[in-house]
Amino acid sequence: MSLKNDLILRAARGEKTERTPVWLMRQAGRILPEYREVRSKMGGFKELVETPEFACEVTIQPVDILGVDAAIIFSDILVIPEAMGLPYQMIEAKGPWFEKTITSLDDINQLRVAQAGDLHYVIDAIKLTKKELNNRVPLIGFAGAPWTIFAYMIEGSGSKTFSKAKKFLYTHPELSHVLLQKITDSTINYLKGQIIAGADMLQLFDSWAGVLSPEQYNQFALKYISQICDAINEVPLTVFAKDAHFARREMGNLKCNTIGLDWTMDIKESRSMIGASKTLQGNMDPCLLYADYETIKKETIKMLKAFGPEKHIANLGHGLYPDLDKDKVKFFVDTIKEFRF
Amino acid sequence: MSLKNDLILRAARGEKTERTPVWLMRQAGRILPEYREVRSKMGGFKELVETPEFACEVTIQPVDILGVDAAIIFSDILVIPEAMGLPYQMIEAKGPWFEKTITSLDDINQLRVAQAGDLHYVIDAIKLTKKELNNRVPLIGFAGAPWTIFAYMIEGSGSKTFSKAKKFLYTHPELSHVLLQKITDSTINYLKGQIIAGADMLQLFDSWAGVLSPEQYNQFALKYISQICDAINEVPLTVFAKDAHFARREMGNLKCNTIGLDWTMDIKESRSMIGASKTLQGNMDPCLLYADYETIKKETIKMLKAFGPEKHIANLGHGLYPDLDKDKVKFFVDTIKEFRF
Repeated sequence: MSLKNDLILRAARGEKTERTPVWLMRQAGRILPEYREVRSKMGGFKELVETPEFACEVTIQPVDILGVDAAIIFSDILVIPEAMGLPYQMIEAKGPWFEKTITSLDDINQLRVAQAGDLHYVIDAIKLTKKELNNRVPLIGFAGAPWTIFAYMIEGSGSKTFSKAKKFLYTHPELSHVLLQKITDSTINYLKGQIIAGADMLQLFDSWAGVLSPEQYNQFALKYISQICDAINEVPLTVFAKDAHFARREMGNLKCNTIGLDWTMDIKESRSMIGASKTLQGNMDPCLLYADYETIKKETIKMLKAFGPEKHIANLGHGLYPDLDKDKVKFFVDTIKEFRF
Repeated sequence: MSLKNDLILRAARGEKTERTPVWLMRQAGRILPEYREVRSKMGGFKELVETPEFACEVTIQPVDILGVDAAIIFSDILVIPEAMGLPYQMIEAKGPWFEKTITSLDDINQLRVAQAGDLHYVIDAIKLTKKELNNRVPLIGFAGAPWTIFAYMIEGSGSKTFSKAKKFLYTHPELSHVLLQKITDSTINYLKGQIIAGADMLQLFDSWAGVLSPEQYNQFALKYISQICDAINEVPLTVFAKDAHFARREMGNLKCNTIGLDWTMDIKESRSMIGASKTLQGNMDPCLLYADYETIKKETIKMLKAFGPEKHIANLGHGLYPDLDKDKVKFFVDTIKEFRF
């Protein structure tokens, strides 16, 4: 059965589309009262992630309420460390926290390479969501990029600098590669499982790309992203490396369809660095959505024109902030959907 | 009386030097046991900043212990909001916190334009340090760049996104300019006072440059940095805008001597974007100093060669992390001082 709205898939493949498609990072989340209601019934964030019925429900909410052109499965990038043997807690208002972190080869050896089956709750949520979406829009699956997952496994929590994780790269480069390879293998298994379950498109989030130097990013991040890009051929893949302005030229050579940009990356400059072949995704500053409607409209249209009519998937340059006004978020989506070149 | 070591001043002016000069952001701080000893005697961080004798002592410590080519006055960028009428507390392990923040024109009108005399404790600390340094090395003065100061005055504390401050830019652009101008005028008064007190060189820290879009950075940050650059002609001035990779071309047009780079900015690319006229400062990843001595030496020499023999002041791409090993920090400094092209 074919998708009723496949704009995002066509844009990702570089095909012409009637209009620019749009979805929003963190579109399933706190900005929606309907999400907050589901969330309030749960014991915590992880219970929501691990319960396919609820994950499915909040995944579909923004399709119904905001009218976006794709759903993205409600999950978390840290399910991979957990599936590898490193469980985490999500602490309210603080973020993720790992009781045990990786400090030695012995620790790495004790980790297993995750199989898709280890993440059955995500796989089940994708299957259920595909069914419930009833082919209205594509469903995006995702995973963290290996460096970002590595960073949490060493650091044990969020951090401004990820200096523990970076210290590990400098002091144990060989061990780092062993761990990064194990994460990469797990991620490929996981993404392949998501494709089999029905994901129409995939995205890799390298949330902490920006703390590395260009050279370390090549050596410890792009190398493994590249392996994933080479392994995933079934569906379009987007690589979003936040703050990795220095890696845009190299990202143009990845075997993926789409490169995500954050709002600090000038659109024309990024296009010239990445090259003409890739679809670009992004890149509005989420804070624009605090502005008045007139400013939102003006800036959104300016962004659309800067990207041009082809090879663009509209999005923010980062996830939605939880205190944004739902009506303004919807206005941003509507402005994009109404605009014609 | 002339300086015994004026390498940094000559490098800033673009003159040839026998070797590349070096100093380190946060060189006066927790990595030194001697600093921790002074600090332990004080009620808190602010007492240290506000007591010229102690500020002088910790300012000179890294000259004696690490052998750096400049001292930088021990102070804080948030002395400016306080002098304008917005006091702050420095909360241990949490960072700065303002009881009152700016939310309206009325709030802005109640702020005064700071005069150098309002910051007599910094001025006195500079005078005392100049005397105690006895012309061994130059003394660097500094201030926060207007956008970064604005960000704290609106946000009221540190933040990953500074979304309140950015929201203010989007929702109150005209008020934002009024406040930014008041901060800029205060900063010029303050920096002029530092020069009169004896500062041999100045640095502007735009610590939160990286949260803005290129367009907002031009409009709300560079405009005011440019005013400061135009006003300061007496001594060399360095502008360090962390994470403002997108503004490197524009920074090449500022009337300042030196542009600071962080470690995510490729050296050759930055040189080509900024142009040949400026001296560049930076840009080693502070985390390199966690590595073994061999790696530190190899990477440091690679950095020196990438910058070349002229128009370079060696430094890190950000401040020293408090848990770095003092001996490795000194080894980094020594490696630079021993290297000859």
